[in-house]
Amino acid sequence: MKKLMNAPADFVDEMLDGLTAAYPASFVRDGESRRVIRRAEGARQGKVGVVSGGGSGHLPLFTGYVGKGLLDSCSIGNVFEGPTVDSCIEAIKLADGGKGVLRLYGNYGGDRMNFDMAGEFLEDEIKTTTVLGTDDIASAGPNEMGKRRGVAGIIYAYKAAGAKAEDGASLEAVTEIAQRTVDATRTIGVALNPCLVPGAAQPSFTIGEDEIEMGMGIHGEPGIWRDKLKPADEVADEMVKRLLDDAPKGRGSRVSVLVNSLGATPLEELLIVYRRVASQLSAAGTQIVLPLVGHYATSMEMAGLSISLCFLDEEIEALLRKPAESPFWRVA
Amino acid sequence: MKKLMNAPADFVDEMLDGLTAAYPASFVRDGESRRVIRRAEGARQGKVGVVSGGGSGHLPLFTGYVGKGLLDSCSIGNVFEGPTVDSCIEAIKLADGGKGVLRLYGNYGGDRMNFDMAGEFLEDEIKTTTVLGTDDIASAGPNEMGKRRGVAGIIYAYKAAGAKAEDGASLEAVTEIAQRTVDATRTIGVALNPCLVPGAAQPSFTIGEDEIEMGMGIHGEPGIWRDKLKPADEVADEMVKRLLDDAPKGRGSRVSVLVNSLGATPLEELLIVYRRVASQLSAAGTQIVLPLVGHYATSMEMAGLSISLCFLDEEIEALLRKPAESPFWRVA
Repeated sequence: MKKLMNAPADFVDEMLDGLTAAYPASFVRDGESRRVIRRAEGARQGKVGVVSGGGSGHLPLFTGYVGKGLLDSCSIGNVFEGPTVDSCIEAIKLADGGKGVLRLYGNYGGDRMNFDMAGEFLEDEIKTTTVLGTDDIASAGPNEMGKRRGVAGIIYAYKAAGAKAEDGASLEAVTEIAQRTVDATRTIGVALNPCLVPGAAQPSFTIGEDEIEMGMGIHGEPGIWRDKLKPADEVADEMVKRLLDDAPKGRGSRVSVLVNSLGATPLEELLIVYRRVASQLSAAGTQIVLPLVGHYATSMEMAGLSISLCFLDEEIEALLRKPAESPFWRVA
Repeated sequence: MKKLMNAPADFVDEMLDGLTAAYPASFVRDGESRRVIRRAEGARQGKVGVVSGGGSGHLPLFTGYVGKGLLDSCSIGNVFEGPTVDSCIEAIKLADGGKGVLRLYGNYGGDRMNFDMAGEFLEDEIKTTTVLGTDDIASAGPNEMGKRRGVAGIIYAYKAAGAKAEDGASLEAVTEIAQRTVDATRTIGVALNPCLVPGAAQPSFTIGEDEIEMGMGIHGEPGIWRDKLKPADEVADEMVKRLLDDAPKGRGSRVSVLVNSLGATPLEELLIVYRRVASQLSAAGTQIVLPLVGHYATSMEMAGLSISLCFLDEEIEALLRKPAESPFWRVA
């Protein structure tokens, strides 16, 4: 594992400097902590704010989804570490347009603790609500949905909540659509090779030269099984079956599909898998709209991919179709 | 090296099936060879056609740049192999709108031979011209520009020629702007780890666990030097210096910069490098417009990146700024 970087301690700050240098019209670095990215145009008065945050190392997640019709701001931790309380406070303040702020982030202990403390700190000043991304079906069973981790599928909730907020909805309505979108989204991943946290002595996990692990988390959390590498179609079939078996009750027949590279896995392989996913979903009587294929939520150079299904209702689909201004939200 | 794929012999066809399934509004597979991707809406009568092609394994190059204001069609070879003569003939025919067709592709022997034969085969039927991508400054010296290979920088010529053709220009004018854009573009790459051609017994090259190679080609062609891995800033400084030392005479002060992942190198590292490139160019009195940072021309899971500079004149900049319809042409 090799990285093109300078001092490991500068990895995140130099990355953020690069992000704001490359996309000055989209992203501004702000806050005393310098660990907040907000929209270049600032919070809009009279609009509900939508804030996310999390550890670094997952670009374009989370920061890349700051933009009109998406997030207002994002607090940024070190690689694979939650953001500080201070940066969460700053992100919430910078997203505040006087109508309250939704905190929408992945279900990880450190992130939860710091966002909760930030909300408490601000409670006399800004009304906040919380929705947690819990889309990873491999991380806990269907009877323990609240224990599931948040992974790539959270971008659907960003998009739906961001569009709803842009439409002028109340904090309650934005919170409701975010929760409804999380509840309608399922993700599972497979890992083929690990990544390396900058400065760490060892990769995030070890795996045999001919092995694959189903259900591994984006920081290397243990999955469901590890076995010899299998043909892509066999892997895709199992992933789709697990996702459909776990689908919300009363779901409709329309879904958006996200086939997401964890990092090193190239577009060629994503497309080979997408082809099979599309054919399996079609055979199951499910219609794909708004497919997403590419790098949406990564673990740096980890090899593998995740598949997310967002089961659409009329409102979620309409919100996903609305325009959004981020270089990283891209629908085919 | 592990791949999520099925039979190696099906890699390219399954990838193309995935591409057209994911982006049906953009890409259609066509030709008896089934190895042509053309615009969904077909060739426009009265417009000059712009055709490219090459080996697979470089997505989104070449196929992903088919779209309005870019390429009309693309012939597709096996991984790292040139497209067949038949697929080149079909691609040219499918791009023909009665005003002639520009063949615009990278300077590699196999691609050249087959595109030349296709042009000869069609010479009584369709007027064609040729422009070769020759942006890789590490592949031959400044006195042998014609021997240089084409790499990521060719996308600037796609964009300029495609926009000019869309404006209704003649074949001569489209050819001239393509050549002028190639002449204004310089690229250099660094490789950290190899990729694996599907079905091959060994990776495309071997490199030590702590080594980097400057100037390596996108198929693993030997570079300028190999050494211990260095800090990103040091690597970026050398790359920028080499690019500026090789800049066209009489260049202006405005450039577009492309920091392109060869595959496994994540966005975090691209941004760290971009930050340094931007600061070095600024120190050299050069103004960056239209920066591109991401996966634009890859070698599957190869680790490393390339930096391209396109030295702008007024017309090239105006053409780069025109809208283009491809899911993969993205300006910050």
